[in-house]
Amino acid sequence: MKLVLKKEAATPIHQQIYHQLVNRIQTGVLAAGDRMPSLRLLSKELEVNYLTINKVYQRLEEEGYVEILQGKGAFVKSPHSGHTFPQIDGHQDSFTPLLTRSQYLMQRSKRQYDFSKAVVSPGLLPSHFLADQAKTILDLYPMILTTYGPVEGDEELRTEVSAYLGNQLGYRPPIDEILITSGVQQAINVVANTFLTPSDTVAVESPCYGAALDTFMNRGNAILPIQIDRDGMRTDLLEEQCRRNPPRVVYVNPTFHNPTGTSMSEKRRKELLELAETYHFLIIEDDSFNEIYFDGVLPPKPIKYFDTTGHCIFLKGFSKTMAPGIRLGALIADKELYESIFIAKASMDVGSPLLNQKVILPFMKTQRMKDHLEKLRIALQIRRDMTVEILENHLKDRITYEIPKGGLNLWIKLPEGIDILGLQKRASELSISFLPGSACYATNEPTQEIRISYSGLSDRENTEGITKLAKLITDLI
Amino acid sequence: MKLVLKKEAATPIHQQIYHQLVNRIQTGVLAAGDRMPSLRLLSKELEVNYLTINKVYQRLEEEGYVEILQGKGAFVKSPHSGHTFPQIDGHQDSFTPLLTRSQYLMQRSKRQYDFSKAVVSPGLLPSHFLADQAKTILDLYPMILTTYGPVEGDEELRTEVSAYLGNQLGYRPPIDEILITSGVQQAINVVANTFLTPSDTVAVESPCYGAALDTFMNRGNAILPIQIDRDGMRTDLLEEQCRRNPPRVVYVNPTFHNPTGTSMSEKRRKELLELAETYHFLIIEDDSFNEIYFDGVLPPKPIKYFDTTGHCIFLKGFSKTMAPGIRLGALIADKELYESIFIAKASMDVGSPLLNQKVILPFMKTQRMKDHLEKLRIALQIRRDMTVEILENHLKDRITYEIPKGGLNLWIKLPEGIDILGLQKRASELSISFLPGSACYATNEPTQEIRISYSGLSDRENTEGITKLAKLITDLI
Repeated sequence: MKLVLKKEAATPIHQQIYHQLVNRIQTGVLAAGDRMPSLRLLSKELEVNYLTINKVYQRLEEEGYVEILQGKGAFVKSPHSGHTFPQIDGHQDSFTPLLTRSQYLMQRSKRQYDFSKAVVSPGLLPSHFLADQAKTILDLYPMILTTYGPVEGDEELRTEVSAYLGNQLGYRPPIDEILITSGVQQAINVVANTFLTPSDTVAVESPCYGAALDTFMNRGNAILPIQIDRDGMRTDLLEEQCRRNPPRVVYVNPTFHNPTGTSMSEKRRKELLELAETYHFLIIEDDSFNEIYFDGVLPPKPIKYFDTTGHCIFLKGFSKTMAPGIRLGALIADKELYESIFIAKASMDVGSPLLNQKVILPFMKTQRMKDHLEKLRIALQIRRDMTVEILENHLKDRITYEIPKGGLNLWIKLPEGIDILGLQKRASELSISFLPGSACYATNEPTQEIRISYSGLSDRENTEGITKLAKLITDLI
Repeated sequence: MKLVLKKEAATPIHQQIYHQLVNRIQTGVLAAGDRMPSLRLLSKELEVNYLTINKVYQRLEEEGYVEILQGKGAFVKSPHSGHTFPQIDGHQDSFTPLLTRSQYLMQRSKRQYDFSKAVVSPGLLPSHFLADQAKTILDLYPMILTTYGPVEGDEELRTEVSAYLGNQLGYRPPIDEILITSGVQQAINVVANTFLTPSDTVAVESPCYGAALDTFMNRGNAILPIQIDRDGMRTDLLEEQCRRNPPRVVYVNPTFHNPTGTSMSEKRRKELLELAETYHFLIIEDDSFNEIYFDGVLPPKPIKYFDTTGHCIFLKGFSKTMAPGIRLGALIADKELYESIFIAKASMDVGSPLLNQKVILPFMKTQRMKDHLEKLRIALQIRRDMTVEILENHLKDRITYEIPKGGLNLWIKLPEGIDILGLQKRASELSISFLPGSACYATNEPTQEIRISYSGLSDRENTEGITKLAKLITDLI
C-alpha cells in the first residue's frame, strides 16, 4: 500500500494520511477484516512521526472505519449502511479521490470471469477485416508512421464520421465541427480542459460513469450528482440546483447509460436542452452505446439531434462497436466552441495517430459496418438474456434490477446485509470480478449496487461465471 | 475571429473580451496594421452591448495596442519594445493564455517553407521498415486492433525501452517504473494531472517549449520563468525563488533545449537535483533530442542519471528520432510515484494503442536503430551547417545566435527595430513560416527572437527557404 504524501501541500500531513486511508477503505483496497499496517511500519514508510499516525488511527476508530484491538492491531470494519462519509473538498484533497475509480483498471492479475469492464469480446468485432485494411493502408501510405497527422484528425475520416452520424443526429455535422480523439475518455478530457476552470461545478447523473467523474474531480471541479430514474436524469432536480447555482457543464450518458442501462426519455432530453439555454451550461453527451439496442427497438434520438443552439457537445465512441485497440472517438461541437477545443487537443497530444484513423475508414464506408452492428446486437442480446435467465433462476426476488434494453451493463441491487467488499473478495478467489457500485458515485458512499458487464467474455465463460457469481451471492444471503 | 465568452464566469465580460483581443494582438493573429472588427460587428457577434465593446477598444488604445482613426476604425499598432503587457492571473483568465501558443499548430494553410515546427522530415526516418513491421505485427496478432492494451503500455515494449534507456540513464529502469504515453506532450499532461493541483507553481526555463507552458497554464498553475544562459537554467536564480516560495514542479528540457538548442551543464544538473531534494519539488526532464548530437560530441548525461532519490521524472520522446506518426513516448518514474501516474493515464485515455507500440519493437531491438541514429545525426548536422552558412553569408553580425550542438532548432535574435509580426506577415507571403519567440515565454512579452527548425524539409527546400528568409530580413534591416 503506497500513500503519496505531499509535504509541501496546504493540507496537513495527518489529513492527507487520513483521507488516503479512508479512500482505500471505502474502495475496498483495504477490505473489511483486513489488518491495517502497523503504526510503526507506516511511520517508518512515510517518514512521519509515530504520534501523527496514532492520531489518524484514533480518528478512524472514532468514525467507525477501523477497530483497534489492544496488542493485535487495527482492523478494517464493515461499513454499516447509512454511514455518511465526510465530504472531501478543497483542491489538495480533491486529488485523493482520483484514486477511487480508475484504480479498478489497475487489476494486474487477470480474472477468468472478468465482468468488471464494459468491453466487447474481440471475437465479436471485425478483427481480421480491420487488420487486412491496416495492411492495405500501409502499402498505400508508406510514410504514414513517420508523419504527424492533423491535430483535428484525418479529413477523410471526419468526412466519413459526418456521413455516419448524419443518420443519428438528423444532420451531417460539417467536418470543421468534428474532432477525432483517442477514444471517448480523451474526448471528455478535451472538453474539461477547454471549458472547465478548476473551480467550476459539473453536474452528472448519479450513478455516473466512473472515469468521467475522475476526469472532472482531477481537474478540481465540484461534482453535483443528480439522481436518475427510469427516464434518466431528473431534470426537475437539476433545475432546482440551477436556480441556486448553475453548473458550468452537465455530463450525461443518456443512451443505455453506464452503469444502469437506462435511457433518458425524449421529453427529458428536450428539458435538459432548455435548461442549458436558460442557465448557459454546456451539455456533454457521451454516446458509446447508441448502436447497441436490443429487441429491435431503437433508442431515443441523441440530445444533439434536438440541439439548435450549440449547447451540446456530442461524443461518439468507436471502442464498443468497432475496435477498442484503435483508440478512436469523435467529438462534435458547434463552430463557436471548436477553435478552443482544437487548441486543447493540440496541447494534450498534438493529434491522434493517423494510421489508426485511416484503418476504420473502409469499414465505415461500406455495408459491412451495418451488417456487423446487426450481428453484434444479436450476439449481445443473447448474452444479456442468458445473464438475466441465470440471475432469475438463482436469485429471483432477492435482487433488484432493470433488464437493459441496450448497452453492455447490468446494474444490480443486492439485498441489505450483503457486504459488497466481502463479496468482492470471495468472488476474486473464484477468479470473478465485477464493479462495485460505489465506483460510480462521486462521494463513494457505500451502496448495495454492483455493475456486471456481460459483453466481454465468450458465451460459455459468461454462463459459467454468472452462474458461479449467482451461487456465491445465494450463499451469502 | 472567434472570441469565446463565458457569461457566467467570475471575470466580467469586458475583461474577457479585452484579454482575448490582447492575446490575439500579442500572438499576431491580429497583426500590426490589421483593422480590428468594427464595434457594431463585434457587438452583434458576441451579443454584447455596443458600449461595452467601445470601452474595451478605448482601453486598448490607451494601452497602445490599437490606434483608433475617426471614421476608419481601429487598427493594430506595432508593439514597441520594452512595453510590458499586463500580467494575467486568476483561474478564469488563466484560460485565455492557452490560446497563445498551441494556436500555431492551427495553421491550416500549409507553407512550402515551414520552419515553425520542430519535426524531422519523414524522408530521414525509417518509414518503409516500420510499415513492413506493422504488417508483420498484424499477421502475428490479428486481434490487436480489437483489444485494449494495458494502460501502462505493452510489456514487451517497456522491456525494450528499459534496455534502450539503460545506456543513457546508467541503469535499466524496472519495467514497472515505465509508462508508455502518446508522445512526450501527453507525458507532460500525465505528470501535470498527477502531481499539480491547480494552484501550484511550476518553474520553467525562460524561454521554454511553448506547448509545455500551455499544459501548465491550462491546469491553472502559476508559471515561474527562470532565466537560462549557456549552461542552461540558472540554478542560482531558482534557488533564490525556492527560498521564498518553492515550486511544486520544475519542468526542464536540458539537452539541446527547445527553443534555444543549449544544454544544461553537468554541474547545473546536479545543482538542480540538490535543490529538488532540499525544497521537495519534482523535476520533469523532457528528453526528445538526446540522440541528435552533432560533431560526434555526446551531450551531458541526463539529470535522471544523477538522481538517486526519485525526484526526477524522465520523459523520452520517440517522435523526433523514430516516427512521429506512431505517437509514442515513455515516462520513467520511481515506484513511489508510479501508481498515481498510472491512474492519471488511465483517466486520460485508458492506454495508448497497442499496434503502435508493437511496431517500434523490432526496430529498437536490432542494430538498425543505432545505424539509423548515426545517419540521422549526419543528415541533420548537414542541414544545421547549411542553415548557419546561409545566415552567415547574408546576415553576419546583424543577428545573434549560438550554433546548436544538437537538436532541431536555431534560436535567433534579430536586431531591435525589426517588427517580428511584420516579418511574419511578409514571410507568409513567400510561403515561409517560423515560430515567433514570444510563443516560448509565459508572459508573451514582445521579443526580437525567433525559432527556426531546420529539420523538417528536404535539403533543397531548406536551402531555398532559409535563403529567402535571410534576404527578407536583410531587406527589413
